[in-house]
Amino acid sequence: MSKETSSTSIDTALQQSQEAFLVYRRVSGAKKADFLEAIAVEIEALGIRLLQQAMEETNLPEARLAGERARTCNQLRQFSTLVKEGSWVDARIDTAIPDRAPLPRPDLRKMMVPLGPVVVFGASNFPFAYSTAGVDTASALAAGCTVVLKAHPAHPKTSEMVADAISKAIAKTGMHVHTFQHVQDSSFESGKALVQHPLTKAVGFTGSFSGGMALYHYAVQRPDPIPVFSEMGSINPVFILPGALKVRREKVADMYAASITQSVGQFCTNPGLMMGLQSPALDQFTQQLGDKMKNIAPGTMLHPGIASNFKKNREKALAQKGVSLVAESIEKPKENQGTSTLSTVNASDFLNDPVLVEEVFGPYSLLVKASTIEELTAAVNKLPGQLTATIIGEEDELIHYAEFIQLVMEKAGRVIINGVPTGVEVCPSMHHGGPFPSTTDSRFTSVGTDAIKRFVRPVSFQNFPEALLPAELKQSNPLGIWRLVNSELKK
Amino acid sequence: MSKETSSTSIDTALQQSQEAFLVYRRVSGAKKADFLEAIAVEIEALGIRLLQQAMEETNLPEARLAGERARTCNQLRQFSTLVKEGSWVDARIDTAIPDRAPLPRPDLRKMMVPLGPVVVFGASNFPFAYSTAGVDTASALAAGCTVVLKAHPAHPKTSEMVADAISKAIAKTGMHVHTFQHVQDSSFESGKALVQHPLTKAVGFTGSFSGGMALYHYAVQRPDPIPVFSEMGSINPVFILPGALKVRREKVADMYAASITQSVGQFCTNPGLMMGLQSPALDQFTQQLGDKMKNIAPGTMLHPGIASNFKKNREKALAQKGVSLVAESIEKPKENQGTSTLSTVNASDFLNDPVLVEEVFGPYSLLVKASTIEELTAAVNKLPGQLTATIIGEEDELIHYAEFIQLVMEKAGRVIINGVPTGVEVCPSMHHGGPFPSTTDSRFTSVGTDAIKRFVRPVSFQNFPEALLPAELKQSNPLGIWRLVNSELKK
Repeated sequence: MSKETSSTSIDTALQQSQEAFLVYRRVSGAKKADFLEAIAVEIEALGIRLLQQAMEETNLPEARLAGERARTCNQLRQFSTLVKEGSWVDARIDTAIPDRAPLPRPDLRKMMVPLGPVVVFGASNFPFAYSTAGVDTASALAAGCTVVLKAHPAHPKTSEMVADAISKAIAKTGMHVHTFQHVQDSSFESGKALVQHPLTKAVGFTGSFSGGMALYHYAVQRPDPIPVFSEMGSINPVFILPGALKVRREKVADMYAASITQSVGQFCTNPGLMMGLQSPALDQFTQQLGDKMKNIAPGTMLHPGIASNFKKNREKALAQKGVSLVAESIEKPKENQGTSTLSTVNASDFLNDPVLVEEVFGPYSLLVKASTIEELTAAVNKLPGQLTATIIGEEDELIHYAEFIQLVMEKAGRVIINGVPTGVEVCPSMHHGGPFPSTTDSRFTSVGTDAIKRFVRPVSFQNFPEALLPAELKQSNPLGIWRLVNSELKK
Repeated sequence: MSKETSSTSIDTALQQSQEAFLVYRRVSGAKKADFLEAIAVEIEALGIRLLQQAMEETNLPEARLAGERARTCNQLRQFSTLVKEGSWVDARIDTAIPDRAPLPRPDLRKMMVPLGPVVVFGASNFPFAYSTAGVDTASALAAGCTVVLKAHPAHPKTSEMVADAISKAIAKTGMHVHTFQHVQDSSFESGKALVQHPLTKAVGFTGSFSGGMALYHYAVQRPDPIPVFSEMGSINPVFILPGALKVRREKVADMYAASITQSVGQFCTNPGLMMGLQSPALDQFTQQLGDKMKNIAPGTMLHPGIASNFKKNREKALAQKGVSLVAESIEKPKENQGTSTLSTVNASDFLNDPVLVEEVFGPYSLLVKASTIEELTAAVNKLPGQLTATIIGEEDELIHYAEFIQLVMEKAGRVIINGVPTGVEVCPSMHHGGPFPSTTDSRFTSVGTDAIKRFVRPVSFQNFPEALLPAELKQSNPLGIWRLVNSELKK
């Protein structure tokens, strides 16, 4: 299918998507579950060929890609389980009270229904998990939306292989042929046209701030604005409290040297900013972390554009007033490689320089030394919204810093105690979506089963005869789902 | 408080709101419940004086206002019950699996937290239920957000009385004095400044399309866009199927004569459009409905601006090609009164005239006669998004028209069978929010307890020690709320 649709105009793609939507929106949860499971099976059936193709296009190592493929199939299966069970539709029933005074209460029932055709943009840094059959596609299909996927130009062949797997799953499970469509077109205009097409009802994107905001503005300037879920990255601040620095600075340095440089720093949850209170222990920690990072060799980045941006942004950050280089990879970077880098600055300089809260996408982190807790607090207040924030501290000092942690929480979508922000667990309790500018909408997640909520809206059914109600809302509860019936949650 | 803050600058109001937010966001559900209950009690304590003030400012009759006050206090109490019980925070817990291969699973917990200071604009047509202590204020306060309320200039004294009641409730329940603030300023600039203030985190509005869209565009053009919930009205189409017209056209005409003219048609759910298939029965129905509406006297509208807009928009609608007047109030309208009006047009003219899907706010309805089901379907496809849509039909013909009803459902937030769209029940199953342009965000409701979801975002807590977790997420579940624990819903 992808080969055909690659030459199809965007208008045709959306017309076909709408046509498929009118069929697909009414497919049962059980059948959508089979379809999502079939996509996972077809991706797995591509075996090593898929990994080889992705290695060639992304420079990511096989083990990392194998892990990402497993995560992608796991995601598809989690959504499959979710829609097979069915309670996600958030069904509510308030039965009629015909003799209520002064007015009778009608029978009212409510559930989530799909929005319509969704446009998904593949991401460069996750060729599987956030791309063709990634979480945006999986959650939109689970919701009952059809998908028009714009392949990321950095891995077109990988994307095409995955799109073919989805086509096979469509054929095997008897879905409408245009339930999923694959568009290969790297032009700026095609992205705009996809977002502004009248039939597009929502957009999923993971990538740069400039890319995400361009799509956002196209969407809100439509005659009928639509939601855009742009996940645009973050510097993921880490606050290291004095007690932890005293007791286990070597261990923390180990953890962070690995987290900062993992996958050449190309994660949206990469810890790009660390902060602590000035002390000899903090100086030693800085040294230890730098020593470890020196020995982590530069790695080839996803594509030349990302590598040259890293070089440019790293140099810009290092040239700011008061910033000094602590350490960089001993091994010199080759072409398109990113070199592991740790820099440091005093909080007073940090507080006066907006450049220092900008993301340097790659294996880079800035360590800020504050002289007082007031300065640390001022630094938190200065931070833009973040996907994550982390606190490293001993148990008793965490209690002591409870107010400070509360403040940090206002800035982030996920707060981690004594861990690293990289490694985003795929589960119902995950929230991957922070206050602006980390995402365009802090109320929704792009990881975990709640990602389905981005692509649905509630509809109330008033006084419907039983025969016309969807299965989720029928009196007999044939699907056996959880429902709020007259304000009581029951199956 | 309102007298003081009326002269306070908007910047000060938001600074104070943020200061109060840092305290209020951590107030327990039980205490927020007491506060909301106290607001209801203080509003009721104003007794007849409040109704008299509102009658003077809105021209609405006492019985209507007494009913609206009851609804407003009922809303406050529903939110009180909701936050006292506590399960609304949608708590999820995925416990750690330290020995999972290849990577351990961390302990992850998630719940909803308040967004921050919310700006609410009072509505002219509901001086209580959508104004000072209306659903936007009640749901924002229930969520843990502070509120800056901009009084509607059409009923400033009523608004001030309700604001004073809230101030009393603040004092009695020991809330921060700036948890709620009242701004009296009818200038265009003040609305813009409130929406664009950096500390404002969300906006609630009920009113005209132009007003709602102006606020929306201010919000999305901010350096950090924020959500705006504008509820902008609707023409609420009603489809009358042939069987019902044969069997009970007189009864339907009775129902609709009342619904179209209730409160001089000044409801966002007023049925401004009716459609049916051409037949002698439809002609008779049109005549019957017209005869009934003739005898419904003109009523004084909320304020002179609304009355002159009604006059202008009614004349514009009646002047469109093919539109003919069926009936209007026999009694001539006095100054600022709206006259009950029924007009009719053939579907072929309706399909070619975009003016005919524009709202005429007041006691006006247009009856469209389609010659075929295809024409009726084309008319549905032409409709912009609606708060509601209604089908009048006999049980067997409803089944026959199931596909058509599905199509109608794509256009509306609530679908009613054999009823009228006016009368919006306040309950968990209510969805009051349709596809654009009826609202700016079809995913959220502005009636019913789910309105609280507009003012919260999820936060994940990773590896938090028990002592630092909020009560909602502690292992022991001290609040006894429903939680999704390792994918199983339990108390």
